[in-house]
Amino acid sequence: MENIGHIIAVMSGKGGVGKTTVSVNLAAALSKMSYQVGIFDADVTGPNVVRAIGAEGGQFMVVGDRILPYKTKDGIAVASMALLVGEGIPIVWRGPLKTRAIQQLMDQVDWRYLDYLVVDLPPGTSDEPLTIMQSFQLDGVVIVTTPQRLALMDVERAINMVKKMGIRVLGIVENMSYFICPGGQEVPMFGGNWTEEVSKKTKVPILGRIPFDPLVAELTDEGKPVVLERPETKIALEFLTVATNIVKIVEKTEEKQKDDQSDEEANKESQK
Amino acid sequence: MENIGHIIAVMSGKGGVGKTTVSVNLAAALSKMSYQVGIFDADVTGPNVVRAIGAEGGQFMVVGDRILPYKTKDGIAVASMALLVGEGIPIVWRGPLKTRAIQQLMDQVDWRYLDYLVVDLPPGTSDEPLTIMQSFQLDGVVIVTTPQRLALMDVERAINMVKKMGIRVLGIVENMSYFICPGGQEVPMFGGNWTEEVSKKTKVPILGRIPFDPLVAELTDEGKPVVLERPETKIALEFLTVATNIVKIVEKTEEKQKDDQSDEEANKESQK
Repeated sequence: MENIGHIIAVMSGKGGVGKTTVSVNLAAALSKMSYQVGIFDADVTGPNVVRAIGAEGGQFMVVGDRILPYKTKDGIAVASMALLVGEGIPIVWRGPLKTRAIQQLMDQVDWRYLDYLVVDLPPGTSDEPLTIMQSFQLDGVVIVTTPQRLALMDVERAINMVKKMGIRVLGIVENMSYFICPGGQEVPMFGGNWTEEVSKKTKVPILGRIPFDPLVAELTDEGKPVVLERPETKIALEFLTVATNIVKIVEKTEEKQKDDQSDEEANKESQK
Repeated sequence: MENIGHIIAVMSGKGGVGKTTVSVNLAAALSKMSYQVGIFDADVTGPNVVRAIGAEGGQFMVVGDRILPYKTKDGIAVASMALLVGEGIPIVWRGPLKTRAIQQLMDQVDWRYLDYLVVDLPPGTSDEPLTIMQSFQLDGVVIVTTPQRLALMDVERAINMVKKMGIRVLGIVENMSYFICPGGQEVPMFGGNWTEEVSKKTKVPILGRIPFDPLVAELTDEGKPVVLERPETKIALEFLTVATNIVKIVEKTEEKQKDDQSDEEANKESQK
């Protein structure tokens, strides 16, 4: 993994909040910002990432014990069990076995050079996502949620679990914030500022608010990330905002670390 | 359970499709049809049922080794671990332990007389919902989904699993079918007739199509099922349609069984 600049994992407190859509469009947004981007599908409940990013039917190239990721027409490197075993991922796979298979795939994929690798984790806060999380040298985790009171608890639990593991929570992406009606009117889908509350309570920033746009469901089924297909849409712009905020946080930390190092060196010098 | 007329379990192929909202409003709709109704919360990931049906802060009455369910102001009997241990359901609970606790609660609850008991199962098709399902004498299972191509696989898997267990699938409830904009315009949220396809492929009927109404999220947070609070709304009417369809299927089967019995008896008679 030494050729990967930054690894960002996308997690959710529970299923059905649009985690994979966010992962795919985050990767697309980073790619649009002209970074070298890869996406690793650690949520093998279905070939969702593969389908949503337009890698369906794509083939891995296996060179010895190395696996070369599939490159989409947009130049995003994709690795997923779904590309190895196809849509029919055996359901019989139990947690540990599945987790090991995912880790093995990750070890064997040769990403060559990447600025950013986005990891789409399994939904929820069970052992599975947490174990997988630990097998990456993550720069941080992005938590996807919907602005529902009932989601509060899940998000808070997720944030606390990640922190307990000594991994950094980069921020919260609020998905399905509002619905864009044909007239362009924006209608809040759930009402209430629950995400705001979790953010305050946990001191984790909100990276962006993604509207619900029926267009995305269609594009996702066609394997076209909205960010690349319809960059002028409001939802695409919101995804770019999220990506920009993540880059800011990650690279600021990087600089800080560099500064700290040079400080240390300076100290050593002065001690001589 | 001999005083319970019919037991209907509500299941989903994956999380986040609105399973609990459907369970709660199905119970409310049956109650509105003047049946004696109870709801059992087997999805203890959070106190969602308790909150959504207006039982938050409600107390169980424990009489010896029997537990009397909490009655909401609408007269719906509610049983949930959340009423025993409150919101802070210990996360440390692992699958088997949790499942056993749920089964024990079910055994101890004294429902007295019920026409219908609605069971809100844990999301997905893991061991947990399947094990719990087996501990009830179910009349059938209702499967909740959203009309997404990506949900297809999950629903089909769920249907096949339930059938394999020899339990009847009563039908599919399509949730989030369309969004009702302020002008009253109905905008499809995902596009495509994916539910139609699963229904054809699996020969399982669609019981109803539920729109997405932001009103419901608010009412849910206030513990007011939309069916009882705003029965005139389109979404409330759709829930009543679902309930009516379920009653038709269940009671038709009942009659058929009665007929078969009387036929048998007639045959015995004639054999004498």
